[in-house]
Amino acid sequence: MSTTETPTKGGRLTLHHLNDSQSQRILWLLEELGVDYDLVLHTRDPKLHRAPPSLTAVPHALGKSPIIVDPAAGTIIESSAIATFLLRTYDTSGRFGASNWVRDETLVSFAGATLGPLNAVELLFDLAAKNTPWPLVYISRRVRKGIQNFYTGPEFKKTMGYLVEQLGDEMWFNSKEPGRSDFLLSWPLDMMAHRKWVNIEKEYPTLAAWRMRIQERPAWKRGLEKGNGYDLSSW
Amino acid sequence: MSTTETPTKGGRLTLHHLNDSQSQRILWLLEELGVDYDLVLHTRDPKLHRAPPSLTAVPHALGKSPIIVDPAAGTIIESSAIATFLLRTYDTSGRFGASNWVRDETLVSFAGATLGPLNAVELLFDLAAKNTPWPLVYISRRVRKGIQNFYTGPEFKKTMGYLVEQLGDEMWFNSKEPGRSDFLLSWPLDMMAHRKWVNIEKEYPTLAAWRMRIQERPAWKRGLEKGNGYDLSSW
Repeated sequence: MSTTETPTKGGRLTLHHLNDSQSQRILWLLEELGVDYDLVLHTRDPKLHRAPPSLTAVPHALGKSPIIVDPAAGTIIESSAIATFLLRTYDTSGRFGASNWVRDETLVSFAGATLGPLNAVELLFDLAAKNTPWPLVYISRRVRKGIQNFYTGPEFKKTMGYLVEQLGDEMWFNSKEPGRSDFLLSWPLDMMAHRKWVNIEKEYPTLAAWRMRIQERPAWKRGLEKGNGYDLSSW
Repeated sequence: MSTTETPTKGGRLTLHHLNDSQSQRILWLLEELGVDYDLVLHTRDPKLHRAPPSLTAVPHALGKSPIIVDPAAGTIIESSAIATFLLRTYDTSGRFGASNWVRDETLVSFAGATLGPLNAVELLFDLAAKNTPWPLVYISRRVRKGIQNFYTGPEFKKTMGYLVEQLGDEMWFNSKEPGRSDFLLSWPLDMMAHRKWVNIEKEYPTLAAWRMRIQERPAWKRGLEKGNGYDLSSW
């Protein structure tokens, strides 16, 4: 986040978006809010799947998507800060307002600070097992299995169980309408589903139904159309 | 987070604290706020350094510290949700209020969702290298070096550089008085410092001075005295 020196054309905010990334949840939120925005599409390096130099070139950011550049607030990074900013600025009717602010804060933190590290570790060993050349691949697959047995497997069980309890028989984590927690939880759960780390359909049917509800929303569909791909298993 | 069925004695809130953990930042915050609270000390298993069963037994939580149980709000987990709750509830004079709310949201998210996964990956390989028996330790040390070269090393550089820029020549990330971002950033930076992942003193003197400012605060010292140890290199 920086101050206001960043130029923005026409007074509209800009989203710097990256394909196959957590930025999709911000694109979804912008569409839900009906914000008038400029979209800059960045595409991952097809070989290494890293963010391209064009994204690194955005000033006051860290080369990671999403980044928004707002004429008044400047450059904002961090998905949950961006979501908070967009909701406070554009959800003037309070349609997506928190039904319970402590619960909202808890689930937002849970998405980033609890599911984030868990997914990061699982991803690292997933990528290592995928990219190790034969015959060493047998070793890296065994290491991955070991990590899953002692760490990520039990953690996925515990965290998903917590989310099942939190969702209960509501439509959304935020109750009747989706809220900040729903927007932010979509990405970690998409990571688990796309990369088949967790069999959400079979083991957590209420969370699978929640994911379906997202995918059926017109704003989610518009976000997918405007973006440049969202397949988190592509890398 | 759950609703209000959790019993609390005497109407005071309770902190379930674990030694050598991120809960120290909540103990610090409670002392800064002058809150009247009950403290339940949990001690890590001395061999595996895992949280003990007594912590797992706290209802509506996930067996991780910190947990607060508040007579009105119930059980609250997730450090940033707890910090937000405590500040909104007890900082009635606004002494620790955000000097810039977008910046505050950004740094809070940065502490959890950016530094959290980075530290989790570094910790995993640090523990692996420490606990691998000879002669395999040479392999696990090489793997660790590889991860540091291609991932955690450059990320530590980038993230510390960002924090240096954000702190600037202010006393606190929140400007004149510490705020939510300072309380929450203390733990990830303590992890890096205690485990010697980053040489903060040498490479990032302004961040080292910020850490010293924390350690000199009477509330930090009281938190250390009331807790049961804070050495993040002990496991």
